[in-house]
Amino acid sequence: MVALQHEGGARDRILNAARELFAAKGFHQSAVAELAAAVHVSIGQIYRLFKGKEDIIEAIVKGDAREREATILSLRKRLDAGEISIERTFELLLLDVMDNPHEALSFDIMAEGFRNARVADMITDMCQGFRDSLADFACAANPRLSGEALKSAEEMMLACLFGLGHRSLSGPVISAERTAKCTAVMIVAALRAMD
Amino acid sequence: MVALQHEGGARDRILNAARELFAAKGFHQSAVAELAAAVHVSIGQIYRLFKGKEDIIEAIVKGDAREREATILSLRKRLDAGEISIERTFELLLLDVMDNPHEALSFDIMAEGFRNARVADMITDMCQGFRDSLADFACAANPRLSGEALKSAEEMMLACLFGLGHRSLSGPVISAERTAKCTAVMIVAALRAMD
Repeated sequence: MVALQHEGGARDRILNAARELFAAKGFHQSAVAELAAAVHVSIGQIYRLFKGKEDIIEAIVKGDAREREATILSLRKRLDAGEISIERTFELLLLDVMDNPHEALSFDIMAEGFRNARVADMITDMCQGFRDSLADFACAANPRLSGEALKSAEEMMLACLFGLGHRSLSGPVISAERTAKCTAVMIVAALRAMD
Repeated sequence: MVALQHEGGARDRILNAARELFAAKGFHQSAVAELAAAVHVSIGQIYRLFKGKEDIIEAIVKGDAREREATILSLRKRLDAGEISIERTFELLLLDVMDNPHEALSFDIMAEGFRNARVADMITDMCQGFRDSLADFACAANPRLSGEALKSAEEMMLACLFGLGHRSLSGPVISAERTAKCTAVMIVAALRAMD
């Protein structure tokens, strides 16, 4: 049990260091030896826990997806309980996606998705879970949405969230807080215009 | 003059081959020697036209920005002449951004933007031009937009366009044509909900 906990700890430390290293240098430009040095473990220990860099990327993507799912589930519960409005639900979701300290790594992983079918599948799976939740939120804003209109709404919402979560390089001038508040109002209006 | 034309031709051929090579292998994993082999020119000739890979990336980003600006200018003229509605303007703009055969390269360039201030500046400059045009379109949809509401609208539109232009890995199920048509209607409704 102690050995398992220790291994879990090492795994998390390796993943955290991998995020930093890959974000700073790029996935392909980072060597497993550098990662081992950053975490103060042997290269062998990394290979005992992960088959290679691709396995590390998979663990990072899945970890991010689990965190996002937990956030969405909690928002869904608060919306269903009448604690927050649909506008506030989108606002909080937008704030969550805009709090993205690893944009560089996201871009690297997505570029890799075009060269590696396994990485592409991981990203598509993660988006599928996200799409289902967004469709639920869209129907909460406008219960008449269905079929192609609902699918289009899903595309628009996913694009908005993705774009706002990766906006640093675009030179934004207003804060994440104001952007989230106003965009939430715009998304709800957009959803209500469709049926 | 003939020599200049020849050089212009070589430059374009190098840039086209660089897009393909960088998209397929990644920017950092591609060597200038491979690029030279793909275009059937010497490595020396590439270095006579470009200082290095970073210069090539700059030429690619600037070329893309010029093309996008030309598209936007043409849409703006058709909108101002009353030839197309604001919804149709957004629809055509969305179709243009969704016709993106080099998503992998975009992601690579953006990842590089987090590691290289010159690349970051190029991306920010390109987005600034885009933001100004989007603000014009937003005001065409809703002339009451100004100040923070207009800036938020700019963020939302830019995010939507960026997300839809980079949606391949997200597993979309509806066509670019339907997505563009419906999203245009949603964007206009969103813009009219703000003031």
